[in-house]
Amino acid sequence: MGLASIVKLFMPKDKVFYSLFEQVTTTLVEMGDIFQKAMNESDPEKRSQMLRSLEDLEHRNDETTHKIFIELGSNFITPFDREDIHALATSLDDIADYTWGSAKRLTNYYIHDVDDTVRGFADIMHRSINALHTGVRELRNMKNLRAIIESCVLINSLENEADDLFDEAMTGLFSTPNINPVDLIKKKDLYQELEIVTDKCEDAANVIESIIVKYA
Amino acid sequence: MGLASIVKLFMPKDKVFYSLFEQVTTTLVEMGDIFQKAMNESDPEKRSQMLRSLEDLEHRNDETTHKIFIELGSNFITPFDREDIHALATSLDDIADYTWGSAKRLTNYYIHDVDDTVRGFADIMHRSINALHTGVRELRNMKNLRAIIESCVLINSLENEADDLFDEAMTGLFSTPNINPVDLIKKKDLYQELEIVTDKCEDAANVIESIIVKYA
Amino acid sequence: MGLASIVKLFMPKDKVFYSLFEQVTTTLVEMGDIFQKAMNESDPEKRSQMLRSLEDLEHRNDETTHKIFIELGSNFITPFDREDIHALATSLDDIADYTWGSAKRLTNYYIHDVDDTVRGFADIMHRSINALHTGVRELRNMKNLRAIIESCVLINSLENEADDLFDEAMTGLFSTPNINPVDLIKKKDLYQELEIVTDKCEDAANVIESIIVKYA
Repeated sequence: MGLASIVKLFMPKDKVFYSLFEQVTTTLVEMGDIFQKAMNESDPEKRSQMLRSLEDLEHRNDETTHKIFIELGSNFITPFDREDIHALATSLDDIADYTWGSAKRLTNYYIHDVDDTVRGFADIMHRSINALHTGVRELRNMKNLRAIIESCVLINSLENEADDLFDEAMTGLFSTPNINPVDLIKKKDLYQELEIVTDKCEDAANVIESIIVKYA
Repeated sequence: MGLASIVKLFMPKDKVFYSLFEQVTTTLVEMGDIFQKAMNESDPEKRSQMLRSLEDLEHRNDETTHKIFIELGSNFITPFDREDIHALATSLDDIADYTWGSAKRLTNYYIHDVDDTVRGFADIMHRSINALHTGVRELRNMKNLRAIIESCVLINSLENEADDLFDEAMTGLFSTPNINPVDLIKKKDLYQELEIVTDKCEDAANVIESIIVKYA
Repeated sequence: MGLASIVKLFMPKDKVFYSLFEQVTTTLVEMGDIFQKAMNESDPEKRSQMLRSLEDLEHRNDETTHKIFIELGSNFITPFDREDIHALATSLDDIADYTWGSAKRLTNYYIHDVDDTVRGFADIMHRSINALHTGVRELRNMKNLRAIIESCVLINSLENEADDLFDEAMTGLFSTPNINPVDLIKKKDLYQELEIVTDKCEDAANVIESIIVKYA
């Protein structure tokens, strides 16, 4: 029996959710960091290596999410509503999935020129995931409701920024004379995947907000 | 304190949901009207202005939806099951999002020729949203179950019509010899977005039906 | 009153869910069989006829799913958590929808050359749906938890296989020199629809697993 298991034995059963959610957002922060760094890396070989490293993190996150669902099934008492735990775990898992999905598109579509739009999304994702991490960590003691609310407000405004960035990118692509249709397909699809990451951050923030409303 | 707030003080807390849902469908009806009128407007400048006006309505709807979630978090007693309120609010919000999304595609993709397919979708959306509005208004007193059921049946049949319209449009596009791939991408994407509006109307109708089943 | 209705009268009300879920997966197995056979049929006319026959099965499945929701609304006692019944019915219904959606793409996009990728997806779908059918049937008596768990594990690993098949197909398409953009659009869209079928099988397996966790 490892140290972690022993510690868990002495932890009130419902506290395990906080730890698991923090594990999830810690992994997400790591993914957001790597993705952003990769988008600012000029060496294609290094960039590609960084993107590939996201797969392991996505798998690790899958496992933690799976643990949350198992705990949810076996624990009668939960620190907040069961449906909120389910919805939060699902949206956080989606963030990892679509981040890894974006990385795969860059690789599988042979997109070698990382443009300002992609870097813009990477920056928004990075800030949004960090705000989520703050919000999730503060859920444990609920002493700093203001910090949680500020995180949620920031994530909502970052999602609006991502929407605008997406719209701009679309008008850019569709007003390019004689654009190569295959290039159009690649970029449109990649931008859509990136935009979904920020939607899922907003979904998670909305769940956090609804948890606070019930608590207050 | 405004009159609306004073009225709210004297309203049994759980009645607030009916009012909020009616506000949502009232906004949706307005959006459906404008969208349909825009699709039948021949002056491109006027059409574009009408489409842009949908953004404010979509924001207004976001705010009302947000209020529903806040009330849901803070009210212990609700007029129907909490998960039904959540599902209904979510699907109604999606209708506004995808209607606005369709408007943005028309604008951002520089689609100037509104074709019969788009007008067909606009007509189906319009009828479907109006049926939803009827269904939602009747939820308040539950005296006219038949009107609610008829609305739901109509919405389901309109969704089938939209499916057929979409399939026809796809076979049309993919059987056009030497179609410009960029045009294909624009239209396919727009039609998909429009079709989702009717799917979301059906989702909302299904929630309404499940509310009635429990009541009956 | 038909025999089925008389039998139902003598059945404990909550047992009806097992029968309905088994009806759903029986229809899904039939759909998976037909789809796989169609993808291995060389005569285009016969293939097209087989694909068209999926529409009736999809409708039949819609009706059974509808019955599940009606029973869920009117039964106070359910054999497992209400939200699990809802989630399981929804994901099983999605499997039918996306299978029929894949068939429609083959037809509407005039895809005449069924390639190895499509046959690979058809095979994965077939195996995944059969595993689901086993899992759902064993839910009734819960005597063979091991068989249920094995089904869920298999479905998860088949979904990974489908992911890899999809990634391979994408790198294949995007590395084809001078690929016809319209062909690219057709195939990419078809593969995506097929991949979603296996995602929905995984969703259903995850619900089944969470039902077992609560029971154990």
